[in-house]
Amino acid sequence: MAKRGRFITLEGIEGAGKSTQIAPLAELLRARGLEVLTTREPGGSPLAERLRALLLDPDSQGMSETTELLLMFAARSDHLERRIRPALKVGHWVLCDRFTDATYAYQGGGRGIDPARIGLLETLVQDELRPDLTLVFDLPTELGLGRAKSRAGQADRFESETQRFFEAARAVYLERARGNPKRYRVIDATASLEAVTLAVAAELNAFVDSLESRS
Amino acid sequence: MAKRGRFITLEGIEGAGKSTQIAPLAELLRARGLEVLTTREPGGSPLAERLRALLLDPDSQGMSETTELLLMFAARSDHLERRIRPALKVGHWVLCDRFTDATYAYQGGGRGIDPARIGLLETLVQDELRPDLTLVFDLPTELGLGRAKSRAGQADRFESETQRFFEAARAVYLERARGNPKRYRVIDATASLEAVTLAVAAELNAFVDSLESRS
Repeated sequence: MAKRGRFITLEGIEGAGKSTQIAPLAELLRARGLEVLTTREPGGSPLAERLRALLLDPDSQGMSETTELLLMFAARSDHLERRIRPALKVGHWVLCDRFTDATYAYQGGGRGIDPARIGLLETLVQDELRPDLTLVFDLPTELGLGRAKSRAGQADRFESETQRFFEAARAVYLERARGNPKRYRVIDATASLEAVTLAVAAELNAFVDSLESRS
Repeated sequence: MAKRGRFITLEGIEGAGKSTQIAPLAELLRARGLEVLTTREPGGSPLAERLRALLLDPDSQGMSETTELLLMFAARSDHLERRIRPALKVGHWVLCDRFTDATYAYQGGGRGIDPARIGLLETLVQDELRPDLTLVFDLPTELGLGRAKSRAGQADRFESETQRFFEAARAVYLERARGNPKRYRVIDATASLEAVTLAVAAELNAFVDSLESRS
């Protein structure tokens, strides 16, 4: 199978449930005969995971917005080069928990970095590569933050941000989804885990069907 | 003293002797009544030193050119933000062992990255900030590599590069110096340690004199 694989990203603010949904989605694709790589950002390759640790470390408080942005794209560059592009090339599908939309939402919306600066790094690192499908798990920020807080462990550097930060991030996700309905699907993430799984499965099945009917 | 400090960088290929010269140069400036910060790149701040370790680690072989470039500028962004800009602002002079000229020489000349991509990151991270004076320690690559090899310890990821890599880096340094004689001074680094110290001291004294006669 020399056909190029498809690149699917899961996006949303903390507590939206995307990390929980990635396993059932991978199963669904495998049941349809596809090879699947599940991965995440920041991280996904040994070097990028080392950068993730730096980025999420509460001790890294005080890192400037520009430093954070460059580290995010350095991690992404390594992840793309060593895992995502090689997988797509041999026809595997890639399910990635967060990608560049998260940079527009968190560093752009949350921290106020000019999206043009983000776009410049996006082109430098990705050239033409963009996700084929992006699932945006949407819910009110209070609900998401409440869910995230009920998880065990210390909050990381992003989880400690204010509600205003997440409101801005959510607004960017929704705006990007509205601007490109061909690529984005907004999923209502307020529903139960099972209901969200069913909704996402329906979207994913429709996406695979549309490709099969085209080929 | 509210006068902005000056930013002086030392550049050159491995074995050119710049790291040895930085201490006597700092002494010279202090003897003239200036406050001096000596620092280095990649590194110079706690986060940037962690990135330096990643960049120089021989185990990082296989990192792509774009990843390396972004990590260099992430380290530079943190170093600028936390050490260089604050020092300049309070009137201290900064002596830095390598800066963005090294990126043009090593990543541009050595690895073949388009200098326009480097320029784009230079503007993103530094805005208008450029060194006030850059001393280029120049010598034939065979001589520099011979000196570097005679030092103790395992070669780092850059020291293990080929002679062609350093020839290209040296050519970029000389070309940049030719293009802007106001900012750059080329120092003949084939001479003895003492002779090089005297030559650099003369350049530095002339630079400080020129500023004092202007004010």
